[in-house]
Amino acid sequence: MNSDEREIRARHALAEELAVQAGKLALGYFRNRDDLVIETKSDPQDVVSIADRNVETLIRDGVTEAFGADGFLGEEYGLVEGSSGYTWVVDPIDGTSPFVHGMPNWCVSIAVLHGGQPVIGVIQVPCHDELYSGALGRGATLNGKALTLDGVKTIRNAVTGIGANHHVTPASVGRTVEDLLKTGGNFVRLGSGALMLAYVAAGRLVGYYEPYMHAWDCLGGYCLVREAGGWFLPFPVEGEGLTRGAPVLATGPGAIDDLRRIAGV
Amino acid sequence: MNSDEREIRARHALAEELAVQAGKLALGYFRNRDDLVIETKSDPQDVVSIADRNVETLIRDGVTEAFGADGFLGEEYGLVEGSSGYTWVVDPIDGTSPFVHGMPNWCVSIAVLHGGQPVIGVIQVPCHDELYSGALGRGATLNGKALTLDGVKTIRNAVTGIGANHHVTPASVGRTVEDLLKTGGNFVRLGSGALMLAYVAAGRLVGYYEPYMHAWDCLGGYCLVREAGGWFLPFPVEGEGLTRGAPVLATGPGAIDDLRRIAGV
Repeated sequence: MNSDEREIRARHALAEELAVQAGKLALGYFRNRDDLVIETKSDPQDVVSIADRNVETLIRDGVTEAFGADGFLGEEYGLVEGSSGYTWVVDPIDGTSPFVHGMPNWCVSIAVLHGGQPVIGVIQVPCHDELYSGALGRGATLNGKALTLDGVKTIRNAVTGIGANHHVTPASVGRTVEDLLKTGGNFVRLGSGALMLAYVAAGRLVGYYEPYMHAWDCLGGYCLVREAGGWFLPFPVEGEGLTRGAPVLATGPGAIDDLRRIAGV
Repeated sequence: MNSDEREIRARHALAEELAVQAGKLALGYFRNRDDLVIETKSDPQDVVSIADRNVETLIRDGVTEAFGADGFLGEEYGLVEGSSGYTWVVDPIDGTSPFVHGMPNWCVSIAVLHGGQPVIGVIQVPCHDELYSGALGRGATLNGKALTLDGVKTIRNAVTGIGANHHVTPASVGRTVEDLLKTGGNFVRLGSGALMLAYVAAGRLVGYYEPYMHAWDCLGGYCLVREAGGWFLPFPVEGEGLTRGAPVLATGPGAIDDLRRIAGV
């Protein structure tokens, strides 16, 4: 094992441990969600609560203690740059809207960036007790079982996940849905992009497209998809790109061409 | 208690019992789904397996044994008319597409029709261990806890569920999505209409719209929504209407006008 591999392996173990701890904390808030004060961010559909903030703090504290020189970007508290070459990119609760409305489709997403790519991806789904985990060159697993994608599933015989938010126009979302259905596809929108990316890695969805997402929403899932044998559209992680949004597309081997055409990327 | 109430109450107890049994049987198939042979029905996205058929048979046998004069309509084996004035309307696995692809968003839906309306609605969600249950005038519950809708949630501060299938054009689905987003709404599509109707009854979704569904997809959820204090678009259950499709819309009190406008009903 070379030095990079050792560094990644140590962080991978921590990422798994923190994802499980974070999932437990979040699940406690979810079960007592009637007591949560829900605030809105950029629009009335963009919600947040103390659960998001405290789960992010739990993860950030765990990283700082073990790898003080690493950078850390979280959805709620933003970016603290590091000096080690490793940057953690975290969405404490992806799918806050399902979370606050009482639906189980939300998850904790942890990625670690190194050399311009996500070298670790861990997604914990507390309501379903599922831990998706992958690291560069080490494959992806779901609760310890290896995930391997093949090209049998296409958009015509499998389901595609989609996402949308106020960064894109209603008309463009409508056109994507129409185009996907016209091509013989079928879609779900579960309310958590990170969860749907994990489902791509697991072969439950054949692909996931969202015209605008942030790094914390997608990098964990991207690592899982790559390690399972799928394809993703590179996310601009250099400089200010890391805190800006970009189109997100990840697919199994049998849907790349169709979904790139539909997404126009 | 009058005679009708006694009749309904007896069937309600059986519906709950059969939904739980059916859920267990279905969950066994789900956990061993790699062994299932998946067939397609009207198009490559319309799937079915032995799980659907055997779960329907379990429910049908239970009904026949206890209430041999009742009618029975199931998604897989169709309608057997009865003479008692009560007709069971069953979707053994609603959300077969999520089911066969390994996603947890599927459920067993059981309704009983009497006097032209769904007097019993029971929806069992095996992967989440949730039993939604309601009967005419007796309210709706989730795992025994009463469900009560108020008008605080609107399409602007809550989530709307949508559905689609090959009975409607891709363009019309795209337009619905666009209109909902333009009005400040947010949507999910979980892949099971009955599940999303149960979520409307539970206040997790503020409404559910699908331009074309069958009686077995919606009548259980409709009963739950009504008993929780919501509104639904009557489904044509008389004569051949019962086995044909129709538009389906159910909403909490705060979203009726907006969703009727968007649905054009």
